[in-house]
Amino acid sequence: MKLKIAVLPGDGIGPEITQQSVKVLKAVADRFDHHFQFEDALVGAAAIDLLDNPLPEATLELCKKSDAVLFGAIGHPKYDNNPDAKVRPEQGLLQLRKGLGLFANIRPVKAYDKLIEQSPLKADRIAGADMVIYRELTGGIYFGDKFTTEDGQSATDVCTYSVEEISRMAHLAFKAAEKRSKKLTLVDKANVLETSRLWRKTVTAIGKEYPEVELDFLFVDNAAMQMILNPTQFDVILTENMFGDILSDEASVIGGSIGLLASASVGKENAMFEPIHGSYPQATGKGIANPVASILSAAMLLEHFGLVEEAEAVKKAVELSIKLNVCTIDINKDNHYTTEKVGDFLEGLISEVD
Amino acid sequence: MKLKIAVLPGDGIGPEITQQSVKVLKAVADRFDHHFQFEDALVGAAAIDLLDNPLPEATLELCKKSDAVLFGAIGHPKYDNNPDAKVRPEQGLLQLRKGLGLFANIRPVKAYDKLIEQSPLKADRIAGADMVIYRELTGGIYFGDKFTTEDGQSATDVCTYSVEEISRMAHLAFKAAEKRSKKLTLVDKANVLETSRLWRKTVTAIGKEYPEVELDFLFVDNAAMQMILNPTQFDVILTENMFGDILSDEASVIGGSIGLLASASVGKENAMFEPIHGSYPQATGKGIANPVASILSAAMLLEHFGLVEEAEAVKKAVELSIKLNVCTIDINKDNHYTTEKVGDFLEGLISEVD
Ligand SMILES: [Mg+2]
Ligand SMILES: [Mg+2]
Repeated sequence: MKLKIAVLPGDGIGPEITQQSVKVLKAVADRFDHHFQFEDALVGAAAIDLLDNPLPEATLELCKKSDAVLFGAIGHPKYDNNPDAKVRPEQGLLQLRKGLGLFANIRPVKAYDKLIEQSPLKADRIAGADMVIYRELTGGIYFGDKFTTEDGQSATDVCTYSVEEISRMAHLAFKAAEKRSKKLTLVDKANVLETSRLWRKTVTAIGKEYPEVELDFLFVDNAAMQMILNPTQFDVILTENMFGDILSDEASVIGGSIGLLASASVGKENAMFEPIHGSYPQATGKGIANPVASILSAAMLLEHFGLVEEAEAVKKAVELSIKLNVCTIDINKDNHYTTEKVGDFLEGLISEVD
Repeated sequence: MKLKIAVLPGDGIGPEITQQSVKVLKAVADRFDHHFQFEDALVGAAAIDLLDNPLPEATLELCKKSDAVLFGAIGHPKYDNNPDAKVRPEQGLLQLRKGLGLFANIRPVKAYDKLIEQSPLKADRIAGADMVIYRELTGGIYFGDKFTTEDGQSATDVCTYSVEEISRMAHLAFKAAEKRSKKLTLVDKANVLETSRLWRKTVTAIGKEYPEVELDFLFVDNAAMQMILNPTQFDVILTENMFGDILSDEASVIGGSIGLLASASVGKENAMFEPIHGSYPQATGKGIANPVASILSAAMLLEHFGLVEEAEAVKKAVELSIKLNVCTIDINKDNHYTTEKVGDFLEGLISEVD
């Protein structure tokens, strides 16, 4: 397969982790006989510094022309700590999502046996947890009309969803469930919210097209409890923007290491892959950043294009590296490897023809 | 002090647990020389069965005339499992909250050392957690306009908050923080929502009247993570209706036993006290229901009227009973006490003049 991949390393540890992912993707291309073409572009603080724009026109154009975007991380303290800053690095990410029409955010959460010790949950609760959250990303209350009355005495936010917005999410989530354990949980608040009732009605109707997938429903308050009490019950979770924001962040901490969590943001024409962690500026250039979340994002990229065997090869390599403790300092306190060494090890595992 | 207390036992285990609370309150009245007058009234399925109304007029009248309402639990499977049922027991509770103008829901969450084993969180995370959540109960998106377009293609929910609604909540929460560890965390999503920005602005302004209380802010998605990662950081949490629904349910499971969690719902003129658990119909009449959540709700009632020493006496008795394992089967598996025996034991501890 030929793929044109835009690489947006961004700020902080972004460049050094993205470099490992590119290395891994190149090893995959070699072994499985694909042709991946990489092109770098500026985004975030790096782009503001040079061009006074967190998302330069050329970057957006490159992303649109590419099959996929591999994104590092964004954000720099010199902008965070300046309340007068008119352009902020984070705007680059929001504009990119909007510019590429990325309406679905996909976040897998998996408990690695080796890391259960680091989880805030007891081992018997978290062992075996393996879920993926499909969060609607461009609708709902975050993007609705919002206003304050002229006297400043009252404020309003409007939450709207259309059948079309819900349908395209539902199809993505059902298709994912078909390839996993065939269980889809819609999280809503249908006992109270009109938008939730539309979600439930629409998703139920679409569910008939996926008869193998078992569909169930959970109110968001209950879902927030179940995520702690019994996270292994979940396979694919589908939910609207704000509930997805809350639940996916809650889910991100139960596994014990945020340095391993990948994500995809998917639209009709484009798709972007990035670790869920930030730019971690204090760690920049020290070789201590964990590249695995970025590398697993690259695995999601492969999966997105149907390269299932290739994605499996990457994920298996990661699992082996964790088992063997070939890990950065966040996971391996005593005898840790550098960012680059972890990347090299994974590259080596993938290149090895078995 | 003279208090007129309306007792609404409700359904399922409601009557048997409420009976223990009344017993405990009578012991408090005796020991501290108060005069508490109790009057029972019907609510929920029990009221539907007799009067075809989950909240009979006479019940609401009694509650309005009383100083406080002691509420048991509501809900019965014969209505839950009947989708055609036009009146549902739960409507009794909603109508009661509305009829009494109860705008604040208050939920303490405390990790008892003895129960840490039962918590889904690891001991080092949960030990020492002791917080109280102030949730706005009658505003926001749950009570805003909601509609679906005529073609059924789009649905909307509106979230509105006024300065007045926010202010009365803020004063309650700041006053609570003054009496506790003097730390108040406002949970919002002020980086996105207009209503959240009004919350932040209003609460910040009111904070100047409470200079001893340290005020900080947390986005709701981050709060959902912090509740698992580090729950001991919280003292008083203040938040709007929907965020409060999600967070207080999430918080309710970290302590390890829902059978211990009390709540208060407070308005300008009235206040109601109830366990957070449901009517648990399968346990009805078996003597296995844990009365402690209801008894701790009675302690909140005492606190609400400034009877701090009295409330402490109840809470200390509960702590001792847990330490001594004088507990129902949900907590003491091997050698459990009945609902009534636990009530008797607590009554005895309180009556004992030291
Ligand atoms: Mg978030
Ligand atoms: Mg709830």
